[in-house]
Amino acid sequence: MSGILLVVSGPSGVGKSTIIEHVIHGDAVGRLCRFSISMTTRAPRAGEIDGEHYFFVDEKAFLRDAEHGMLLEYARYNDHYYGTPAEPVLRSINNGECVILDIETQGMFQVIGRMPEAVTVFVAPPSDAVLEKRLRGRGTEDEERIMKRLEAARLEHEHISKYQYIIINDISDKAAHDLAAIIRAECLKTYRTIFKEVRKQ
Amino acid sequence: MSGILLVVSGPSGVGKSTIIEHVIHGDAVGRLCRFSISMTTRAPRAGEIDGEHYFFVDEKAFLRDAEHGMLLEYARYNDHYYGTPAEPVLRSINNGECVILDIETQGMFQVIGRMPEAVTVFVAPPSDAVLEKRLRGRGTEDEERIMKRLEAARLEHEHISKYQYIIINDISDKAAHDLAAIIRAECLKTYRTIFKEVRKQ
Repeated sequence: MSGILLVVSGPSGVGKSTIIEHVIHGDAVGRLCRFSISMTTRAPRAGEIDGEHYFFVDEKAFLRDAEHGMLLEYARYNDHYYGTPAEPVLRSINNGECVILDIETQGMFQVIGRMPEAVTVFVAPPSDAVLEKRLRGRGTEDEERIMKRLEAARLEHEHISKYQYIIINDISDKAAHDLAAIIRAECLKTYRTIFKEVRKQ
Repeated sequence: MSGILLVVSGPSGVGKSTIIEHVIHGDAVGRLCRFSISMTTRAPRAGEIDGEHYFFVDEKAFLRDAEHGMLLEYARYNDHYYGTPAEPVLRSINNGECVILDIETQGMFQVIGRMPEAVTVFVAPPSDAVLEKRLRGRGTEDEERIMKRLEAARLEHEHISKYQYIIINDISDKAAHDLAAIIRAECLKTYRTIFKEVRKQ
């Protein structure tokens, strides 16, 4: 494969989306990158477009795809399924693009089980205290939900050593540069470069 | 090891030194980087300072160090020995620095034999024709010497797949950014980050 499958994980509130958006829209490598579009069984919210924000399907269709191995990873949250359709991801990678999956640790394990050449990045907060402050700063969630997210963050953090790269998100500009550097360096990996034909004589 | 041992190879005339100088003096990661100082048995040239440009030693001292495994790699060219003293390199790496070795392919093989965690980068010209033009452009070497260098480049190129990263030096600013991205990404590798203590609670 000449492109990159990039898995980005990290606790809710750590700033993954901001970092990824910075890279896609603000860095030279951004033109190579695109977000993977997930498939879900939950209903579209106002303004959400099928095929752009999500692929919206019913549970029967979702589970059929999952059974046939057509999803790189999937999980069930709050009574709905979410997953990553394999086909568009593989097509992009074969075109030399970098496809970014923003998924949880369990999803990462499913992805590397099927595609061990995936590049895995964990975005960590500088400390638990900073994460808590950020979650509270959003002002959108009640105490119970915040405590749940912090507990989930602690559990995810146990798997941090399974990721190839760690970015500490203290300053998000710096973190975006870090992610861009990882993508740029991965593009220079010999096995990818040789694939693209090293020397055009 | 928390730092990086970075081996950069590539044919004479490809622009390795320019790229490395750009990174050391022009990029944020530059402050982490330093050139390794080689040991040699050749006499100092005008202006060369012992311990700054080279460690100048006699052949007896050089071969004693080589025998005692105190050199990461060494070779003989034009009746003189050149090598990389291990001790200062290891000290810098343990301090979290990135030590850059600008050495030939045979030296790279010696280095990874002793330190398989070294990061290896090959700087390739966009084509043989471009390399030839650059070598002639220097205007410092006769035809025989240029032919010798081109033959050496072809031989080195056979080992390109043994390097972890390949940078094509078409535009040297871009190549310097590539090298800086590799260093930055390598600093984010999990095993190095964990070494440096991931989270300061």
